[in-house]
Amino acid sequence: MIRVGIVGATGYTGVELLRLLVGHPHAQPCVITSRGEEGKRVDALFPSLRGHCDLAFTAPDVARLAQCDLVFFATPNGTAMHMAPALLEAGVKVIDLAADFRLRDAGEWAQWYGQAHACPELLDEAVYGLPEVNRERIAGARLVANPGCYPTAVQLGFLPLLEAALVDPGRLIADAKSGVSGAGRGASVSNLFTEAGDSLHAYGLGGHRHQPEIEQGLAPYTNAGVGLTFVPHLTPMIRGIHATLYAEQNAEGDLQELYEERYRDEPFVDVMPRGSQPQTRSVRGSNVCRIGVHARPGGRVVVLSVIDNLVKGAAGQAVQNMNIMCALAETEGLAAPAMIP
Amino acid sequence: MIRVGIVGATGYTGVELLRLLVGHPHAQPCVITSRGEEGKRVDALFPSLRGHCDLAFTAPDVARLAQCDLVFFATPNGTAMHMAPALLEAGVKVIDLAADFRLRDAGEWAQWYGQAHACPELLDEAVYGLPEVNRERIAGARLVANPGCYPTAVQLGFLPLLEAALVDPGRLIADAKSGVSGAGRGASVSNLFTEAGDSLHAYGLGGHRHQPEIEQGLAPYTNAGVGLTFVPHLTPMIRGIHATLYAEQNAEGDLQELYEERYRDEPFVDVMPRGSQPQTRSVRGSNVCRIGVHARPGGRVVVLSVIDNLVKGAAGQAVQNMNIMCALAETEGLAAPAMIP
Amino acid sequence: MIRVGIVGATGYTGVELLRLLVGHPHAQPCVITSRGEEGKRVDALFPSLRGHCDLAFTAPDVARLAQCDLVFFATPNGTAMHMAPALLEAGVKVIDLAADFRLRDAGEWAQWYGQAHACPELLDEAVYGLPEVNRERIAGARLVANPGCYPTAVQLGFLPLLEAALVDPGRLIADAKSGVSGAGRGASVSNLFTEAGDSLHAYGLGGHRHQPEIEQGLAPYTNAGVGLTFVPHLTPMIRGIHATLYAEQNAEGDLQELYEERYRDEPFVDVMPRGSQPQTRSVRGSNVCRIGVHARPGGRVVVLSVIDNLVKGAAGQAVQNMNIMCALAETEGLAAPAMIP
Amino acid sequence: MIRVGIVGATGYTGVELLRLLVGHPHAQPCVITSRGEEGKRVDALFPSLRGHCDLAFTAPDVARLAQCDLVFFATPNGTAMHMAPALLEAGVKVIDLAADFRLRDAGEWAQWYGQAHACPELLDEAVYGLPEVNRERIAGARLVANPGCYPTAVQLGFLPLLEAALVDPGRLIADAKSGVSGAGRGASVSNLFTEAGDSLHAYGLGGHRHQPEIEQGLAPYTNAGVGLTFVPHLTPMIRGIHATLYAEQNAEGDLQELYEERYRDEPFVDVMPRGSQPQTRSVRGSNVCRIGVHARPGGRVVVLSVIDNLVKGAAGQAVQNMNIMCALAETEGLAAPAMIP
Repeated sequence: MIRVGIVGATGYTGVELLRLLVGHPHAQPCVITSRGEEGKRVDALFPSLRGHCDLAFTAPDVARLAQCDLVFFATPNGTAMHMAPALLEAGVKVIDLAADFRLRDAGEWAQWYGQAHACPELLDEAVYGLPEVNRERIAGARLVANPGCYPTAVQLGFLPLLEAALVDPGRLIADAKSGVSGAGRGASVSNLFTEAGDSLHAYGLGGHRHQPEIEQGLAPYTNAGVGLTFVPHLTPMIRGIHATLYAEQNAEGDLQELYEERYRDEPFVDVMPRGSQPQTRSVRGSNVCRIGVHARPGGRVVVLSVIDNLVKGAAGQAVQNMNIMCALAETEGLAAPAMIP
Repeated sequence: MIRVGIVGATGYTGVELLRLLVGHPHAQPCVITSRGEEGKRVDALFPSLRGHCDLAFTAPDVARLAQCDLVFFATPNGTAMHMAPALLEAGVKVIDLAADFRLRDAGEWAQWYGQAHACPELLDEAVYGLPEVNRERIAGARLVANPGCYPTAVQLGFLPLLEAALVDPGRLIADAKSGVSGAGRGASVSNLFTEAGDSLHAYGLGGHRHQPEIEQGLAPYTNAGVGLTFVPHLTPMIRGIHATLYAEQNAEGDLQELYEERYRDEPFVDVMPRGSQPQTRSVRGSNVCRIGVHARPGGRVVVLSVIDNLVKGAAGQAVQNMNIMCALAETEGLAAPAMIP
Repeated sequence: MIRVGIVGATGYTGVELLRLLVGHPHAQPCVITSRGEEGKRVDALFPSLRGHCDLAFTAPDVARLAQCDLVFFATPNGTAMHMAPALLEAGVKVIDLAADFRLRDAGEWAQWYGQAHACPELLDEAVYGLPEVNRERIAGARLVANPGCYPTAVQLGFLPLLEAALVDPGRLIADAKSGVSGAGRGASVSNLFTEAGDSLHAYGLGGHRHQPEIEQGLAPYTNAGVGLTFVPHLTPMIRGIHATLYAEQNAEGDLQELYEERYRDEPFVDVMPRGSQPQTRSVRGSNVCRIGVHARPGGRVVVLSVIDNLVKGAAGQAVQNMNIMCALAETEGLAAPAMIP
Repeated sequence: MIRVGIVGATGYTGVELLRLLVGHPHAQPCVITSRGEEGKRVDALFPSLRGHCDLAFTAPDVARLAQCDLVFFATPNGTAMHMAPALLEAGVKVIDLAADFRLRDAGEWAQWYGQAHACPELLDEAVYGLPEVNRERIAGARLVANPGCYPTAVQLGFLPLLEAALVDPGRLIADAKSGVSGAGRGASVSNLFTEAGDSLHAYGLGGHRHQPEIEQGLAPYTNAGVGLTFVPHLTPMIRGIHATLYAEQNAEGDLQELYEERYRDEPFVDVMPRGSQPQTRSVRGSNVCRIGVHARPGGRVVVLSVIDNLVKGAAGQAVQNMNIMCALAETEGLAAPAMIP
């Protein structure tokens, strides 16, 4: 049984990790931390866990966490980088669900996240945890940077096109729509039910931190440089990301076959039948990314890629990475179908 | 033209006052205050007002507010009582949308609101602004205590029964359901879209401040003392209150006729046809209280009373009170029908 | 492995059965029927099941269904009673999720459901499938009538009070709030997103079919006759029932202890800590009924009882009954925690 | 007072026309028709209109409608074309809110709407009712084709760019998000609260009828032919369209100034301050189109254009057209600000 710690278990990715892990046959949450809720039982904060988890929050402490085999950081950006080195030193595997280890360039990281990186020496070692790209490296990793939610949906949608060099990498568009849980569980006016409900708007047009992450992930497939216009939108649903991707095809190829072939053996990427337009709810609560791919007049390619931002976009992918890192079956603990309606 | 001031215009009751007042033919917002947003234009905070209101927030200042004919307090509880005396002194009429002047007993107020009352000497003069009960006194008032949202829906629903002495006043139940805007525009975890959405729960079972207000309003109609069980619920809608009221009939009488007769001349209480079950959306954005009344087996009376908590439950009723205090037609500025869907 | 059939698997209770059963270690869906969708794969209708179930709908046929060990009817009222006799004859266990076998009196059934009962001779044999009351009889049953959603929440909430004779059974009130999925997956104007969204209303005040079911369930605990006022409300959430129950206490007793004692060994009833006000989302997707119990001034008892109407109120309870009937562990396939947010 | 008829007043555009017209100082609804609801009062179907409109539905009848000065068709596509000729003959002005007169080419119309056009001879005379483009012609028109909801948001967003020839007209993208009311008030499974709620998906990728309408509207501004990729999405809100528009800039120009200049005198197009990202709720219930325009790296232009699909996208624009056709002030009856929250 893998002993698991979760740092920052009061947020949505933290409680989602717990939801998935209490049903995992080979992993067990042993330490959960929170400065603000120290001493409180997690099932007092989240009654949905009553009968499933009797842990109480402790203050984050390296010595206690070092008794775990693997620690997830479900913390704000800039937290994991202060504790990860000591944990790695102690032989603990680390998966960061925040952004601390996603960008390989410490300078770029500092620019987007507004602070110097605390352990730039680990950036080279950290493996970007998108199993559909890096499965082998994840298996051997001590430190995994779990991808962001938008980057997961966007990269899985664009990858086959770029790998096959079928589209112009310099003129990509990702029009992405997210549920509100992507903004986290912090108190805020703009995410109130009364503000985010029954309305919809774009945001981040001045620059969004997920853009460099996506570009870094797509860059290896082109010599020409990736040019991406990324426009996220906040939409009145709780969970779900719908990425609508636009590209311009500049080489022949059957797109449906391309995608089916690329993801044939992937347990968590579902290429839907020709003509499909996936609903976000078809992945609600599950670790699946569903994709529909459409050739349109004028050489336009439209890819529809949906995930649950808290599962394949966060906690589920983190468990998938844990499974790979710990040589478990990759789907362990992640087999439940989505919940509809 | 009546010159109007609004103290605390950054919350939902404040911006709703502005929405109603910009279309009012005989009143004009002249001063809007906010400590936190001083200097900012209100239409920058609420773009829905672009083209309708070019005021900017100023810090609350009695001298500036004293230039108004009437000042609304759309502030947290415990604010109006510190400024109202000086404004009244300066000859300004005051309508408080918060609770400062709702309870006549300063001791009871202090107990429920956790602080001593700053001007208990005004409690006797203040008129409880439920026009369906106090129209005459409102017309002559300098200071009006605008009723709470729940109390408005509950009192209008129970009043005919109590006035006619048809039910046992000691065994009343009000099971009330509110939209989230009733909780205001403050940042909070529990009112996030992700927390309040797609869920429902009771609250306030340990005691809710609207209970003494309701009991005080119903008390005059019985010698026996009012016994009310009040259970509010938070529901995933933006606006609306649905009060489901239960009473035990102990005298004969046709309930439908009773209600129709009681509210025949009321411009903002609509007794629906026999057997009706009103939807909250039928009053969304309007100042109407719609009521359905049902006799049930066993002598049970069930009254369904719906309002828009921000209109008849707050800003609309405040404008109605202003109209009465200023000898305008009572429906001025309040004539628009509800918006459905 | 128990071979399972589902008649009427295109509705919400049907697809919810499939969601639960594809993860059940000892049961396997083998036949799913639908007249309207014959020949279509279920995962084409519900892409959430892609990769989990490759069955296609067949027309309902007793011979084919007779190859199953157990058949669930997730059909409209009045369907199961035409097929159940032949299936029982063939040695198949039957669980009806509709109302055909819930009322013991054929005349009363005919009155509420507007048609004569097709097999009144089975009404005595049929066991009402509320395990917290009838576990022993369910274990030996061939035919189980799965309780309605409201009746499950209301009975579990009232039972301890009535069993202990602490309240007046003649003056009960159940103010219940349901998500829209309780109305099923049929096309209708009133359940459109645009009609049911951002609004709330009572319904069924002219009489609701769940009322006699509740009264029948509560009747054994009193000689005096049950007097229940039941007012259901449609609320803008997808899943969930919140029953707010009111009773008048007429004997002494610690309510919290009473409930904890009554449900101590129940795997799917969770009595929350003193003072709790459960959220419906705390049971979303799970088979749990969570209860908060409150003594209020004047001898009023308020019980808050929440379930997921599609799980403990339908498919989950049906699987629980199947487990009992088939001598499996009662929690098999039902262990996943609720999904929040 | 202009006497107004509404054919098909049981749908959302019909009831929205009534909501706007009951407050219009110079127009009065006199005839409302519905085959299905003949004889029923409109306020029985829509209680929000109680006290505002006491009309009852009549069967559609040209003679009765001919007593009106102007008739709105709020009917399904293919209805107005059968009655409009007789009404025009009788001297009645006609505004069709459906698509019958939007496309100038009868053959193209037949192809997209699956039936032959009943009065192709009127297509030349019909004026496309987008006041920001055709104000002069609308003023003199007998027959106005009210634009579709998506086409309104998309054209108003793209027009300044195309008029100024700043972008490549052959590579336009409109990623549009609509609330569910755009799908109308007909019973359907896919628009149930339980299906459309808490989820999001693209649709119409096989071809959407609003595409030729948009292309026809944009075509006059280029010799090169319009190439548009149009992807609509269904989103879980009641009202609102958010069109996110992408174009490639191929000439210099300050976009903000361009838009401000273009729409300076338009009463219902609001170009927001530089950098703005409008929320759909900022126009909820109002006739305004709010626009934010953004230059992005790589010569990409992103335009954000929001409307209320039932107001500026349907009934409000129809009233605006009526005002113009009848020489009234263009904003008459349309002055109320949006309702937030």
